[in-house]
Amino acid sequence: MGVFSADTGHEQVVFCQDRTTGLKAIIGVYSTALGPALGGTRFYPYASEEEALHDVLELSRGMAYKNALAGLDLGGGKAVIWGDPVLDKTEALLRAYGRFVQSLNGRYWTACDVGTYVQDMDVVARETRFVTGRSVEHGGAGDSSILTAWGVFQGMRAAAEHRWGSPSLRGRRVGVAGLGKVGKYLVAHLLEDGAEVVATDPSEAAIAWARQTHPQITLVGDVQELITSDIEVYAPCALGGALNDDTVPVLRAQIVAGAANNQLAHPGVEKLLAERGILYAPDYVVNAGGVIQVADEIEGFNFDRAKLRATKIYTTTKQILELADDEGVSPATAADRLAERRMAEVGRLQTIRLPR
Amino acid sequence: MGVFSADTGHEQVVFCQDRTTGLKAIIGVYSTALGPALGGTRFYPYASEEEALHDVLELSRGMAYKNALAGLDLGGGKAVIWGDPVLDKTEALLRAYGRFVQSLNGRYWTACDVGTYVQDMDVVARETRFVTGRSVEHGGAGDSSILTAWGVFQGMRAAAEHRWGSPSLRGRRVGVAGLGKVGKYLVAHLLEDGAEVVATDPSEAAIAWARQTHPQITLVGDVQELITSDIEVYAPCALGGALNDDTVPVLRAQIVAGAANNQLAHPGVEKLLAERGILYAPDYVVNAGGVIQVADEIEGFNFDRAKLRATKIYTTTKQILELADDEGVSPATAADRLAERRMAEVGRLQTIRLPR
Repeated sequence: MGVFSADTGHEQVVFCQDRTTGLKAIIGVYSTALGPALGGTRFYPYASEEEALHDVLELSRGMAYKNALAGLDLGGGKAVIWGDPVLDKTEALLRAYGRFVQSLNGRYWTACDVGTYVQDMDVVARETRFVTGRSVEHGGAGDSSILTAWGVFQGMRAAAEHRWGSPSLRGRRVGVAGLGKVGKYLVAHLLEDGAEVVATDPSEAAIAWARQTHPQITLVGDVQELITSDIEVYAPCALGGALNDDTVPVLRAQIVAGAANNQLAHPGVEKLLAERGILYAPDYVVNAGGVIQVADEIEGFNFDRAKLRATKIYTTTKQILELADDEGVSPATAADRLAERRMAEVGRLQTIRLPR
Repeated sequence: MGVFSADTGHEQVVFCQDRTTGLKAIIGVYSTALGPALGGTRFYPYASEEEALHDVLELSRGMAYKNALAGLDLGGGKAVIWGDPVLDKTEALLRAYGRFVQSLNGRYWTACDVGTYVQDMDVVARETRFVTGRSVEHGGAGDSSILTAWGVFQGMRAAAEHRWGSPSLRGRRVGVAGLGKVGKYLVAHLLEDGAEVVATDPSEAAIAWARQTHPQITLVGDVQELITSDIEVYAPCALGGALNDDTVPVLRAQIVAGAANNQLAHPGVEKLLAERGILYAPDYVVNAGGVIQVADEIEGFNFDRAKLRATKIYTTTKQILELADDEGVSPATAADRLAERRMAEVGRLQTIRLPR
């Protein structure tokens, strides 16, 4: 597979190499129509260059759509460093990578992703100013799960209103799969809103936390038990692929809205959900709180401003669900269309030239 | 073939795409150790992306070595635009390409190559300042064959001195294959120096020019006749691959020094030349006058300064031939080693930090 032959329409794909440090990185810039391309750096031991390229092409495209619907003035990009973060991550390698990010002169902004941490971004930032998602000591916004959970909650409220006429989750039975950072904050919002929460997590520590902190939660043994129990909303907040050929047919919820990435195991799942009358709030729309936070950090983080932006996930999700009805398509397709419209319409504004 | 798997050690390989204009370009930056990577843009209808990538990897690496030995403060790069210059070259496409050159912020400087002309560089320059080889009206240096021929002549003089103890070509029989722009100027230098010139060219117009302008030249029917005639120096100034398994065994010259690119048809040819005792002045060393000219243009073209730089091809060629003897390697290998040493030694000077 090549870059052009993949036919994905990326603006720019930059292979970067530094033999001395062993750096092999690929920066994918899908679109800069809305602004500099923002997306994290994944550090991963891909089996092949082809696999690394495939991943960066997919991920950078996804970020363009996510950033567009998050209402950000940012395009979509992503980077991968091909290597084992445990064995290969050194100061020199990260800084060599930073110099290549700098070489793009702001067309691409990086942040954390799988295999990289805020401390790594602090190192990268010693060579480039186009880094966000820094450590708190360096002006970073800190834990992004607070706003991610807030955004998921807003998306769920929008789906509830679309489905039941009211955004309130009072008295609704909501199943939360995964009590990691985001799941924990989400549970708190749900309980505060008066929902009945059913939850599961494979970690004993997470379960102990739930028993202690929120004794009113119903805890179940596993995801299978969760999705087949009498829930009205399902919030996948753990691994990807939660919606698949096995889970959707038995899922009792009428709404799916959760924080997990890539919830649809394959494109056909959308159809299964529609056939079963399950309303799906697209994952990349409702879980955009994290990128909203790192984007806000670029301006100098302001929690209230970032929260306001994450609150708009409510409006965007409503708009997407209405568009889906209007155009007779799935919510996922409606989300893609809305993102493409924003990229085209707002991107076109550059043609109204302003003197520099 | 991928970028990393090709294992060529390039710093950066940038795939650029603009769907509206149809632009598909690859910019290869082999090394910036000595300065911004300079190399032309080839516009060519490659059969596949793989072929385009292979070409840009090879060409950009070649430019790094060429620029290093030309004594320039420039690294090596090259770009290819994948398309048919006759059908696909539009103002918008060239300008889209220019924006991508600009996006690299001066790490890559472009110029003409196969399929692009000074007028195209004027168009590209409307989007980026990192263009040289412009039209004369835009500050361009004009025809680069004058300095190319001058450089080849200097390289030939160095080879003559190395072989015969004197750089003069007085009384030497020099065979020139190709009376194109460079060949014509070279012939004039040779005649002025007192050489006996034997020449060939498939073009009747070129032959007529030679008869009229330099009646003292001996004209022969084809290259085969030229190389088997009683010449002491052979100057291939036409197509690549002049030195191959067919020509070297019958070549009567003791020295090869010419303007053509890629004279060695394959790596083994070096050995054939050595076995026959033929001294080969590496093509990319002696034909660097053209790149010296476009590099000089970056500073604002000064013919005398550029000529002085091209004159140094004499010293460099001598140095390479001596190094080859000292280290018991072919001149081509010696040239590569010298280039690598300059990239390493002068490149390292960046580590002596100067406040910005």
